[in-house]
Amino acid sequence: MMMLMMRKGSRNLWRKMGLKQILYSTNSLSDTLVNNSVRVLGPDLPEIWIPNPSSPSRPPPNIRRSPFIFNRQEQTAAVIDGKMMADEIRSEIANEVSRMKNSIGKVPGLAVVLVGERKDSQIYVRKKIAACEEVGIMSFMTELPKDCTEVQVLDAVSSYNLDPAVHGILVQLPLPQHMNEEKILNDVSLEKDVDGFHPVNMGNLAMTGRDPLFIPCTPKGCIELLLRSNVEIMGKKVAVIGRSNIAGLPTSLLLQRHHATVSVVHAFTKNPEKITREADIVISAAGVANLVRGHWLKPGAIVIDVGTNPVEDPDSESGYTLTGDVCYEEAIKVASAITPVPGGVGPMTIAMLLSNTLDSAKRAYRFS
Amino acid sequence: MMMLMMRKGSRNLWRKMGLKQILYSTNSLSDTLVNNSVRVLGPDLPEIWIPNPSSPSRPPPNIRRSPFIFNRQEQTAAVIDGKMMADEIRSEIANEVSRMKNSIGKVPGLAVVLVGERKDSQIYVRKKIAACEEVGIMSFMTELPKDCTEVQVLDAVSSYNLDPAVHGILVQLPLPQHMNEEKILNDVSLEKDVDGFHPVNMGNLAMTGRDPLFIPCTPKGCIELLLRSNVEIMGKKVAVIGRSNIAGLPTSLLLQRHHATVSVVHAFTKNPEKITREADIVISAAGVANLVRGHWLKPGAIVIDVGTNPVEDPDSESGYTLTGDVCYEEAIKVASAITPVPGGVGPMTIAMLLSNTLDSAKRAYRFS
Repeated sequence: MMMLMMRKGSRNLWRKMGLKQILYSTNSLSDTLVNNSVRVLGPDLPEIWIPNPSSPSRPPPNIRRSPFIFNRQEQTAAVIDGKMMADEIRSEIANEVSRMKNSIGKVPGLAVVLVGERKDSQIYVRKKIAACEEVGIMSFMTELPKDCTEVQVLDAVSSYNLDPAVHGILVQLPLPQHMNEEKILNDVSLEKDVDGFHPVNMGNLAMTGRDPLFIPCTPKGCIELLLRSNVEIMGKKVAVIGRSNIAGLPTSLLLQRHHATVSVVHAFTKNPEKITREADIVISAAGVANLVRGHWLKPGAIVIDVGTNPVEDPDSESGYTLTGDVCYEEAIKVASAITPVPGGVGPMTIAMLLSNTLDSAKRAYRFS
Repeated sequence: MMMLMMRKGSRNLWRKMGLKQILYSTNSLSDTLVNNSVRVLGPDLPEIWIPNPSSPSRPPPNIRRSPFIFNRQEQTAAVIDGKMMADEIRSEIANEVSRMKNSIGKVPGLAVVLVGERKDSQIYVRKKIAACEEVGIMSFMTELPKDCTEVQVLDAVSSYNLDPAVHGILVQLPLPQHMNEEKILNDVSLEKDVDGFHPVNMGNLAMTGRDPLFIPCTPKGCIELLLRSNVEIMGKKVAVIGRSNIAGLPTSLLLQRHHATVSVVHAFTKNPEKITREADIVISAAGVANLVRGHWLKPGAIVIDVGTNPVEDPDSESGYTLTGDVCYEEAIKVASAITPVPGGVGPMTIAMLLSNTLDSAKRAYRFS
């Protein structure tokens, strides 16, 4: 996904930066009006994190995760067990699904559209479908080859939109490069947008006094992790690292609804470690392994690590291990609580998908 | 508007806080699932600024704006002349409208729906219509009494939606309390939403890689003020004070598109002055007269003051004067550039409304 995004971004970068330079230097009104959207919306730049010299993207070898070198006695942070919390939520959802089935003879249904043969996407989709089965949610799946047409994907979405047994539709991202992601996601019925990626849901998440039909799963999982750990959010300083449409952005919007004071740190932020160090709560969703070092954290901070970055590991069967954005071994000596990777945000994200699908079915059947 | 919001907010406060307390204390899963949206979306609290003891909401009497007491020699800030910039933009829009008229025999049209007899709303609407006339944009107006029904307002919006001579529809806010603002604003055709308040436009403003059809006028005006003053935004630390749907929120989203590092300060922020003092650019849209004192600013900061707060003034004919959020007399000694109130953001907001209406007409007629 990163590769695709960067390639697309770079192309826009040169095109738009060139244009922008002209606009800025002439500062001509007619240019401004004609090319208004480029100028006023800002340049479309690729999100490439350039690690600070003092913050290599990987920790020095002697502090890499290893049970032999790592000294557990230095640990100060409580580990927030996302897997356990997700298990609790899933068991509750299973009860609700069973109550629904017994009461009205219906169960929630989730449809997944998977395009292409990406290994990671296949793994995620398999996990989601297994999670559905476990709680009694019916799952539907459409697999399309990488070289299928956009119309085929739109057709799949459209038939699920019409299917009364389907209450949630999930288009697995990233889509192949030749497809218009925006167009496809906007085609998902608002009432079945369990990923919460429709602009109406995002707009209503952003605006005070409006309620989105669905909250994107990762942000919702992060907030649940904090609430269930009895972390107060209101009035707290929160640094959200990363601003992707699926994680960082909606997380920052949801935190503001909880009255946190949010600073969004991204690839263009100067001194990201300084801003992060001032935060009571750090939520990292940059997608950069070990970006957040120990010295980025205020002592006692709460750390939620959204990153799941594959890092080469010759000792592992698959050739890689999943690593978070946060240098865990350093962070546990500074933070007061932290989510591990894996076993933190990941399981909660899937639990929230099930929860959104259940909510959607309840709404459709007016079942409470 | 503040009064209405507070009343509504307070009612929700007790209802929701009560519920939330139960939810938090029991931490029960079935409660969580049943009352999910209240818990996960966060409590709906009124935005009441409690001035810091060291920061009275008004400056001490000896530094209130007065040509006799105010010592101009201490001024260090350049004054950003929003009126002059807006005049330039309006003159350019007038040229474009005239070019459109000569070329295709059409002009842009803006329709305003005004409900009730609020003096301030009447003044704003009159200003907007006068600005339209000045540049050759045709204006339409529907005035409805305060006690009209919601259906009457929806009918007015609906007929403008269908009218091909109307390219922009503006529902003047606030609406009377018995009306569903969300429902009415969502009814404005996306293609005519020149205020940019439709959730689809807001969602697309928030999301990376998406382009809203319209950017709300006040944020767009703030960015234009910065760009035209040659202020670099990318990588700069910006404090946005206030998070209303019409000003603070979309401004923070637009600044992020310009790759600023944005912190949103609001009524629940602890030490707002500390966060503000770290910012290279301060944009205040809190709606609290003289909230931002001189010591809230970093020396050399750029200050954009969105506030237009009526403050009692027995010397004035109307009994009040308009004052910004920023204590101007203190700020000009610390900042490197500042917008005055009036004559800063206000005229730019109206110019951006005209610009959005022109853009909309160009889109409708495929005129470039």
